[in-house]
Amino acid sequence: NIVTLIEQYFSSSPSSLLLKGKKVLVTAGPTREKIDPVRFFSNRSTGKMGYAIAETAAELGAEVTLISGPTNLPSPRNVETIRIESAQEMYEEVIKRFSSAHIVIKSAAVADYRPKYVFNEKMKKKPGDLVVELERTIDILKALGEQKTEQFLVGFAAETEQVEEYALQKLQRKNLDMIVANNVAQKGAGFASDTNIVTIFKRDGSITKLPLLTKKKVAEEILKEIAEAIG
Amino acid sequence: NIVTLIEQYFSSSPSSLLLKGKKVLVTAGPTREKIDPVRFFSNRSTGKMGYAIAETAAELGAEVTLISGPTNLPSPRNVETIRIESAQEMYEEVIKRFSSAHIVIKSAAVADYRPKYVFNEKMKKKPGDLVVELERTIDILKALGEQKTEQFLVGFAAETEQVEEYALQKLQRKNLDMIVANNVAQKGAGFASDTNIVTIFKRDGSITKLPLLTKKKVAEEILKEIAEAIG
Repeated sequence: NIVTLIEQYFSSSPSSLLLKGKKVLVTAGPTREKIDPVRFFSNRSTGKMGYAIAETAAELGAEVTLISGPTNLPSPRNVETIRIESAQEMYEEVIKRFSSAHIVIKSAAVADYRPKYVFNEKMKKKPGDLVVELERTIDILKALGEQKTEQFLVGFAAETEQVEEYALQKLQRKNLDMIVANNVAQKGAGFASDTNIVTIFKRDGSITKLPLLTKKKVAEEILKEIAEAIG
Repeated sequence: NIVTLIEQYFSSSPSSLLLKGKKVLVTAGPTREKIDPVRFFSNRSTGKMGYAIAETAAELGAEVTLISGPTNLPSPRNVETIRIESAQEMYEEVIKRFSSAHIVIKSAAVADYRPKYVFNEKMKKKPGDLVVELERTIDILKALGEQKTEQFLVGFAAETEQVEEYALQKLQRKNLDMIVANNVAQKGAGFASDTNIVTIFKRDGSITKLPLLTKKKVAEEILKEIAEAIG
């Protein structure tokens, strides 16, 4: 719209609109997998990294859609933000936008497992132990890797050990173009942090190790690498 | 401190300092029970009701300590806020302050179960289902009911069905002085809502049904009922 165009005209030099004309799909945050109306499984993702990527991509001129799990972050400026809760909902929102996207950045920490049985009423506790059966959720990144045509597909690997090894395996196994790896147990690289320490692996074998940076700055570096790679 | 006293002098008429000289212990928010460094079990509590109670108790002249699970709320004015994560940490912080408290209001949604085995590294997913064994956490409210001497002990019952029946059973079983019950499946009474619809049951058999109110207003009503009950 007009406001966006005027803002961009005054805020960015034309040379910085690296992603002008590109449709970028970003996922962010955790998912929640319900056990009953009150209880759920989740993870420590706060969405900060993904929101920074979505915001920065919009500043670089891209048309950005952000599919977000439950976070406390406001929708970034000039980004269409769609809020979902479960891995299944994330899958549905991503898959219907995949074919028209140029760049897809899957920074969300999607649950790998969900309860096999979901209770409609709050479960009453009982004495003694409880066994919860979990089943695998759809592997969204793998599905995208299989369906990929011209999209540039970026994954994340948040690990606590053997970070590079796991990241490279994931890049291959899921047919990604790039993977951004970080050790979430490292100080300054964790989920709720405003900083991150990442290594970027590309399909062509190139590796970029970044120092501790703000998540905003990491987002800029990731998007610059993508812009270079897609030419 | 001086600032607090001056603020209270100008903000409240003396007759409204209903809880002057009382030590009030409030718990709020969910707990998180770790599966590994990344994944956890939790629940939908946002802490809004408990934070409103803590804030209002301080406005009514009480000396307030708030033990809070992970929330996105700032510490209320003039309240000592202690942040914890698990049910076990909540128990430890509450129990050491219990004997010196006059009023204890347990609004936190403490997890009833936690994983029996916690992994030090992020679990790698595998094909197929997964079984998670859970064990009971300490029942904090029950422990307080058993240790109670002069404290006025208030519990909450967040249910999705048979709300009154479950609330009255809990009041008896846990030796409470008051229980505040709400149906979290009801519109306007849920966890993330700024409003609530509660019924207050007291040990003496009296029942106060409140209409849909802001959580701030519900907090005022609960604290007025407590002030009356303790004379």
